[in-house]
Amino acid sequence: MKIDGRHYRTIWLDDDGWSVQVIDQTLLPHQFEIMRLTTVDAAATAIRDMVVRGAPLIGATAAYGVCLAMRADATDAALAQAHDALLQTRPTAVNLRWALDEMQSCLLRHRPDERVAVAYARAAEICDDDVATCEAIGRHGLALIDDAWQRAGQARPVNILTHCNAGWLATVDWGTALAPIYKAHDQGIPVHVWVDETRPRNQGAALTAYELGSHGVPHTVVVDNAGGHLMQHGKVDLCITGTDRTTASGDVCNKIGTYLKALAAHDNGVPFYVGLPYSTIDWRADDGVREIPIEERDAGEVTWVGGRDPDGRMTRVAVTPASSTAANFAFDVTPARLVTGLITERGVCPASRAGLAGLYPEQAA
Amino acid sequence: MKIDGRHYRTIWLDDDGWSVQVIDQTLLPHQFEIMRLTTVDAAATAIRDMVVRGAPLIGATAAYGVCLAMRADATDAALAQAHDALLQTRPTAVNLRWALDEMQSCLLRHRPDERVAVAYARAAEICDDDVATCEAIGRHGLALIDDAWQRAGQARPVNILTHCNAGWLATVDWGTALAPIYKAHDQGIPVHVWVDETRPRNQGAALTAYELGSHGVPHTVVVDNAGGHLMQHGKVDLCITGTDRTTASGDVCNKIGTYLKALAAHDNGVPFYVGLPYSTIDWRADDGVREIPIEERDAGEVTWVGGRDPDGRMTRVAVTPASSTAANFAFDVTPARLVTGLITERGVCPASRAGLAGLYPEQAA
Repeated sequence: MKIDGRHYRTIWLDDDGWSVQVIDQTLLPHQFEIMRLTTVDAAATAIRDMVVRGAPLIGATAAYGVCLAMRADATDAALAQAHDALLQTRPTAVNLRWALDEMQSCLLRHRPDERVAVAYARAAEICDDDVATCEAIGRHGLALIDDAWQRAGQARPVNILTHCNAGWLATVDWGTALAPIYKAHDQGIPVHVWVDETRPRNQGAALTAYELGSHGVPHTVVVDNAGGHLMQHGKVDLCITGTDRTTASGDVCNKIGTYLKALAAHDNGVPFYVGLPYSTIDWRADDGVREIPIEERDAGEVTWVGGRDPDGRMTRVAVTPASSTAANFAFDVTPARLVTGLITERGVCPASRAGLAGLYPEQAA
Repeated sequence: MKIDGRHYRTIWLDDDGWSVQVIDQTLLPHQFEIMRLTTVDAAATAIRDMVVRGAPLIGATAAYGVCLAMRADATDAALAQAHDALLQTRPTAVNLRWALDEMQSCLLRHRPDERVAVAYARAAEICDDDVATCEAIGRHGLALIDDAWQRAGQARPVNILTHCNAGWLATVDWGTALAPIYKAHDQGIPVHVWVDETRPRNQGAALTAYELGSHGVPHTVVVDNAGGHLMQHGKVDLCITGTDRTTASGDVCNKIGTYLKALAAHDNGVPFYVGLPYSTIDWRADDGVREIPIEERDAGEVTWVGGRDPDGRMTRVAVTPASSTAANFAFDVTPARLVTGLITERGVCPASRAGLAGLYPEQAA
């Protein structure tokens, strides 16, 4: 999507044809800086430190991390080592394993001296596939927003609440949850987005607000506490979030706090949709609450808040007493019963085993 | 309650016998400073700028503000002017009007030359009454925590989640939601408190964590998004919050986000209690969602976060793009159907018209 009128993807090759460029998302929304990755370790660090984040972009970055590893050493041992090192960067996103397994199985079918070229070709395909997948999610989700606009008599903007960032910055382009919103905006359907701040890392306040604003989409930032009140008072027509992992039965694992918004949507009759590519479906998982491991991150993400001070300096402030501890669970699971529908690249389906099996019969077999 | 082993109230008279001392809560948890109030204007500013906050403490500070006004000018006109100036400081707290009306009607029954002494005596009574009320809430709520401990086989601490600050810093002493927790802790029942950060003003991270820590109560700060996950995984035995206004039918208006926690508690079978003094019950209100006006505060409270930087300086950081707007609804309403019980100074009752009428028959008549 666009920044200052110029089109970007979130990951691309430098003019040298091999080094990998990414936007440093830890500096947004205050600074726009591009980081150049030249080693598999740098790629792993970029994922671990959340320079890049969002399940699809993590997968794409890991794929290019394998490319960088192959440039240094294209043996089976080096491939296995790169696979394992990259896999350990983040425990929850299922795309990470998918992309790494895909790269590994592809490369093992080739001789070491062919692997660099094959790796770059496959990584580029993974990126292009992600763009096509997200664009298709946008097309299918657009119909839901158009329906809401018709129900509103085309008399006012459609109000959509989203949590965290599942926009183009979380993918290679378009996004998952935000793809339908960009499609609607680009087609002239008036939309307004309630952007959950998304503590502790503020991906909503920092990234979703940034990318919507850069593309010209009207939006208002609210604290994570506000969504229930907004829905009680008819200020939300539908919710759309992304997901880091969806089980075969339709349970949705996403950024911590998603479950609370789904509860509020259910309590107020507001449709709650989840945008996702096929690569985030975990066909082996059934009960999301019981089966999906939830990453616990550093307490410092809760006790400190980063941003730009009144003098323009990037800094951080402590918001808790020095003697207090904090816990930092990164995700939660929204049971399928609270999800109105899943917006996939193949269409919209109920959040259920039957719904997913209808769209992905080859997996259900 | 205690700070560094010394007992404090939140408001008291200086040794001079007339000037008013309060803890500057805008500097907590990073600095402990006492502010001396010597004029009615200073008292009004302290309320408006949230040097003092919490409905009961606002009422107590307003009462002493009237005392300070009477020292300067004890005429009827000056009394009316002080009443009006103090009333305009905060729009939502129902205790503020109650305390001011009480002071005014009391003083109008006395000659101007008697009013200073009468005012200080009545303000002291209002404070002592608040302490007794909160202590009683603590006693009644203690039984609920003790029950939870028995159910846990006395084998582990009782885990209690609270939202915002309804502790002794919000009252004159003890607090409302936290009074049962202090009672349990002081009696040797092991408790652990999950402290919701409570964006946008972080009263949980700043004040609840500070006062629990100062008194020695084990606690962990979590972002407002985390409560649902904690409850899904059995990590919360009960929730206790305060309230700014409760309707005659038991709907609870409290800090924004309380409704989301009540939904999660309901969805997971976790008891959800609200601690409140009689003075926060609005007997004329029925449907809280429809009838209670919700204060909208400055967007800057959402877009900026205050705290202490790594160099120890108090500052604030922007967390949103400069071009993004924010909305800041201060409260929400939790429907009575989601509230397990109300903990009042007269006992615990169901959150219903019949429940409240049982405890306050003189109001139901």
